[in-house]
Amino acid sequence: MNSIVQSLLRSGAASTDAALEHLLPGTDVLPHSIHRAMRHSVFAGGKRLRPILCMEAARMVAAHSNPALIDAIPEGVAELGAALEMLHTYSLIHDDLPALDDDVLRRGQPTCHVAFGEATAILAGDALQTLAFQTIGNLRPPPATTVAILREIAAAVSTGVGTVGDIQTGLPPGMIGGQVMDIEGEGHTPTAELVEAIHRAKTGALIAVSIVAGGLYGAGSASTESTASSDTIGRLRSFGEKAGLAFQIVDDVLDMTQDSAQLGKTAGKDTATVKATWPAVYGIERSNEDAKTLIADAFAELEPFGAAADGLKAIAQYLVERTN
Amino acid sequence: MNSIVQSLLRSGAASTDAALEHLLPGTDVLPHSIHRAMRHSVFAGGKRLRPILCMEAARMVAAHSNPALIDAIPEGVAELGAALEMLHTYSLIHDDLPALDDDVLRRGQPTCHVAFGEATAILAGDALQTLAFQTIGNLRPPPATTVAILREIAAAVSTGVGTVGDIQTGLPPGMIGGQVMDIEGEGHTPTAELVEAIHRAKTGALIAVSIVAGGLYGAGSASTESTASSDTIGRLRSFGEKAGLAFQIVDDVLDMTQDSAQLGKTAGKDTATVKATWPAVYGIERSNEDAKTLIADAFAELEPFGAAADGLKAIAQYLVERTN
Repeated sequence: MNSIVQSLLRSGAASTDAALEHLLPGTDVLPHSIHRAMRHSVFAGGKRLRPILCMEAARMVAAHSNPALIDAIPEGVAELGAALEMLHTYSLIHDDLPALDDDVLRRGQPTCHVAFGEATAILAGDALQTLAFQTIGNLRPPPATTVAILREIAAAVSTGVGTVGDIQTGLPPGMIGGQVMDIEGEGHTPTAELVEAIHRAKTGALIAVSIVAGGLYGAGSASTESTASSDTIGRLRSFGEKAGLAFQIVDDVLDMTQDSAQLGKTAGKDTATVKATWPAVYGIERSNEDAKTLIADAFAELEPFGAAADGLKAIAQYLVERTN
Repeated sequence: MNSIVQSLLRSGAASTDAALEHLLPGTDVLPHSIHRAMRHSVFAGGKRLRPILCMEAARMVAAHSNPALIDAIPEGVAELGAALEMLHTYSLIHDDLPALDDDVLRRGQPTCHVAFGEATAILAGDALQTLAFQTIGNLRPPPATTVAILREIAAAVSTGVGTVGDIQTGLPPGMIGGQVMDIEGEGHTPTAELVEAIHRAKTGALIAVSIVAGGLYGAGSASTESTASSDTIGRLRSFGEKAGLAFQIVDDVLDMTQDSAQLGKTAGKDTATVKATWPAVYGIERSNEDAKTLIADAFAELEPFGAAADGLKAIAQYLVERTN
């Protein structure tokens, strides 16, 4: 990993953590148990990739309209990143529940229901989703920008019926819809179409919207342009969809090739439960190639942003080269 | 029940149902199972009290600023009402889960997890919360009004740390916080303070915010006033908190005095599990008196709105006189 990426990841994670620390109720706030459970899962050592992508997209769009902003992350965007991380964490808490994936280990820690009981874990997930939308409501940009961000993010974590429908597969990508497809597909031999639909929905939609929402925020914050153009949003969405799919393919490969200690979660679980994964359909070699092709295609979308896109590209590159 | 109330309840429920029908994905939309589960619970025969209160508050505030609007429900407010009903339904689905109240009957129908399995019920609740916020994002009023509504509603369904903190008890009212307190209080002898805190949070916060959000919407829709004054919002909030508490006290009394067939849910459950209820602390007679006193106090808050408040008052009166 080169030093630019290292520094972007480190500073992005630090500002996300600071925002989360500020936004999440303290463990001394009543009722204690749920605030402890929320913090347990939020501060379990996530890489903060979605917030980092969001902040870099915000910087890129702001800098594209006003080059003087190239070195500054737009003020307050870390709170938007924190909201995205809350949504990601809520989905993990519910996904790990006994009725769903029944997982006991996540990021090297006991999962939320193992540590706090099932009832508290269900409510902690619920409360993180709520707090994410509450955080979006308190963002600093003009209300019109906030509403645009709200619409995009809500659609991305929905069952999938919204603004981001996927015409090709007929299965519109929304995070909850992806979880349902994943559960229903378990035990069946996965088809290529189903795997792609699940990946685009379950993880891809939130990753893509992190970049779209960041772009909307960046445009709303830049002095010279208050609304992102539809071309900008279209490019960010396409970049995000491709990078998100590449990210998930790499995740699938790592699950098959690494052990639990390296991953911080139960390795090989996808194979054991016949999960719909990319390598299960295409094999490991082809999967690695597909991830690289997707990233190259994603990069092409950022052409018009020139050097302002360097940070976002470097992070996307890291996503497909990482080993955990 | 007099005919004015009957007509308000009937037309309010009809326009809420029409909005819900339009907003919820059809059962033929993929993935099918979750959309069926969402509709199962949303269309299980709820009275739509929160949407009705919301729409009447919107009408009252719009008519107060422009008397010509007295006979018209502001355009599009049924969608806001539908969002509130989605939040209410999501909370019921999760509350009924085996890990929480473990209830099998709700409004005379099998609960969501009984009909669709636990995994789908968890995700259906999640998706209803998301769809509620997505619906708020698509409301018609100016973005500043939408953002104000978003902030109020998110705080009301949160763990309770937000704009509506309750200084008196130290336990801030938020819906999820109320559910946590309710679970943690089970099996202990309920104190008056705990019962009031739970009621204010678990059901009171969403009822109160239905009225506040309706008022914000009504002000945003009326041509002569685009923002509700803080006095108006304060009065609506106080009215809603008092009416919401009265509603829950009556609910507790009905649970003790009526059978399951009349209620459409398992009667006597609160007593069987030593739930924190008003009659458990004060007895039935005093509970009925308290509900009436609260409603009288609530009415006083609406004095400045004159005849425009008649509908809202009539509905609140019905809430404490109902028998199921």
